Amino acid sequence: MKLKEIGEFGLIERMARGVKTDASVIKGIGDDAAVLKWTRDKYLLVTVDMLIEGRHFTRQAAPERIGWKAVCCGISDIAAMGGVPKWAVVSCGLPPGLKVDYIDGLYKGIKKAAALFKTNITGGDTNASNGIILDVAVIGEAKKDELTLRGGAKTGDFIFVTGELGGSIQGKHLDFTPRLRESRILVKNFKLNSMIDISDGLSSDLGHILKQSSKGAVIYEDLIPRSKKAKSIKNALSDGEDFELLFTMPPYEANRLLALKNKLFNIPVTRIGTVTPRKQGIKIVDPFGARRELTPAGFTHF
Amino acid sequence: MKLKEIGEFGLIERMARGVKTDASVIKGIGDDAAVLKWTRDKYLLVTVDMLIEGRHFTRQAAPERIGWKAVCCGISDIAAMGGVPKWAVVSCGLPPGLKVDYIDGLYKGIKKAAALFKTNITGGDTNASNGIILDVAVIGEAKKDELTLRGGAKTGDFIFVTGELGGSIQGKHLDFTPRLRESRILVKNFKLNSMIDISDGLSSDLGHILKQSSKGAVIYEDLIPRSKKAKSIKNALSDGEDFELLFTMPPYEANRLLALKNKLFNIPVTRIGTVTPRKQGIKIVDPFGARRELTPAGFTHF
Repeated sequence: MKLKEIGEFGLIERMARGVKTDASVIKGIGDDAAVLKWTRDKYLLVTVDMLIEGRHFTRQAAPERIGWKAVCCGISDIAAMGGVPKWAVVSCGLPPGLKVDYIDGLYKGIKKAAALFKTNITGGDTNASNGIILDVAVIGEAKKDELTLRGGAKTGDFIFVTGELGGSIQGKHLDFTPRLRESRILVKNFKLNSMIDISDGLSSDLGHILKQSSKGAVIYEDLIPRSKKAKSIKNALSDGEDFELLFTMPPYEANRLLALKNKLFNIPVTRIGTVTPRKQGIKIVDPFGARRELTPAGFTHF
Repeated sequence: MKLKEIGEFGLIERMARGVKTDASVIKGIGDDAAVLKWTRDKYLLVTVDMLIEGRHFTRQAAPERIGWKAVCCGISDIAAMGGVPKWAVVSCGLPPGLKVDYIDGLYKGIKKAAALFKTNITGGDTNASNGIILDVAVIGEAKKDELTLRGGAKTGDFIFVTGELGGSIQGKHLDFTPRLRESRILVKNFKLNSMIDISDGLSSDLGHILKQSSKGAVIYEDLIPRSKKAKSIKNALSDGEDFELLFTMPPYEANRLLALKNKLFNIPVTRIGTVTPRKQGIKIVDPFGARRELTPAGFTHF
């Protein structure tokens, strides 16, 4: 049997199999970041994201954008936990024949993102490789009462997304702004029950929240905010790398958010549906009111 | 200008250039691990090591050994700081056509090392790639009074190494035991002034300690413990990936260590020389008593 037959989730399941963790691990494999014991009122968060030339970017893209993305994927993960980034370590694989100007470009993007999101670059590893590889681990912290996991969605929660979805592959995936500012405002002012960043695609990532929460959902096609680059609802539902936040909160909090959102945010924050009991499944209602099964479809690695 | 012209240290210098860190970073780029503010009496340590197929290993090696090494490089770094590992995150790039049996082997090695060194596997990232890439970040902690940096060597310090050096490429580099046990004994019982793990080669890594400490040294060819796989003194001086500890301590501590070492350790712990003022340079004395310049030579990535 080959990797492509078991896929990403089969692979993660095999990695997790038989792994025992001690009491220092609050949440291990399976959320946007690991949650580890730290102080009386804070958790440590750890996440890592690898970018590989030819898979996630090509040599044609400006190196600043690749460096930017390499850091921002992790910042987005930390934001999706309700945390703030603090430190990053950068592993690179770089071809010995690569021009130093190009490397300076990669580093410029890395440093720009780290500085903007107040993340200290504290080390890394450098290696020779055939293609360019960047792997950035971001370490952050979350106040215990601000930590937001995937698995906390409750029946009746309203489902929200930030920004506009779809078509990220046309460019935004290299220039996106991780929604750290929005996450800070959300967790400081509202009680959220669950959150994830949309990296695989709305339908997939909603699936992750619902699976871990043992819930179903109904979402409304008409309510899903589409980016100008999204040609159809399919792009908004299943394109990867939007790096927007997807979150759920109880109705009374959600109504407060709906009343305040234009004052609090510079970007759209949109209700797209409701969490339902698990046995209802995951449904999408089309513009004519017809209800169908929402099949998680999005970016798959293998 | 190309990467191979500036080399690994030119690359690291370019990454470090202009990087500002806040007060949470005790020691950033340039030691075996980053040292970060943690609790009142402990520091947090972070290190990362990337292994790339065709550069660090070939597909012919048993996957268990590759997985083992991927974790143990970071354990060795944490040991070299006087710390203990706590958590690891594992990033992989894996070819979609790779056999699942092979992946299970990689994971078996990863899990075996993590379990043996009481390191919790807490997450990671999975990606498709052409060749196999494993990048493991290890996070640990060090008591403030046990932290041992590269830069603390003092004139008159005795220089020690654990184990036997050279010829690691013939197999040990995939099966080595990181010297965590020895590091624990050392930092709990003795005052060390500096420590590093030998990954680039004795002459290179001694060079790192001396450069960061602004010191020189004299070492004695006859005292350097050679592994059976080392064909000549050159192998012991410049072969990479021994993953032994190289450390310095004041004479009164060193004499205590020399008296106690056979009781405390199962492996050789050998005095190989003395730290001198910087202006003396780095010298090696041959078996006939002739003194020559020791030129750092070891594994170079580019």
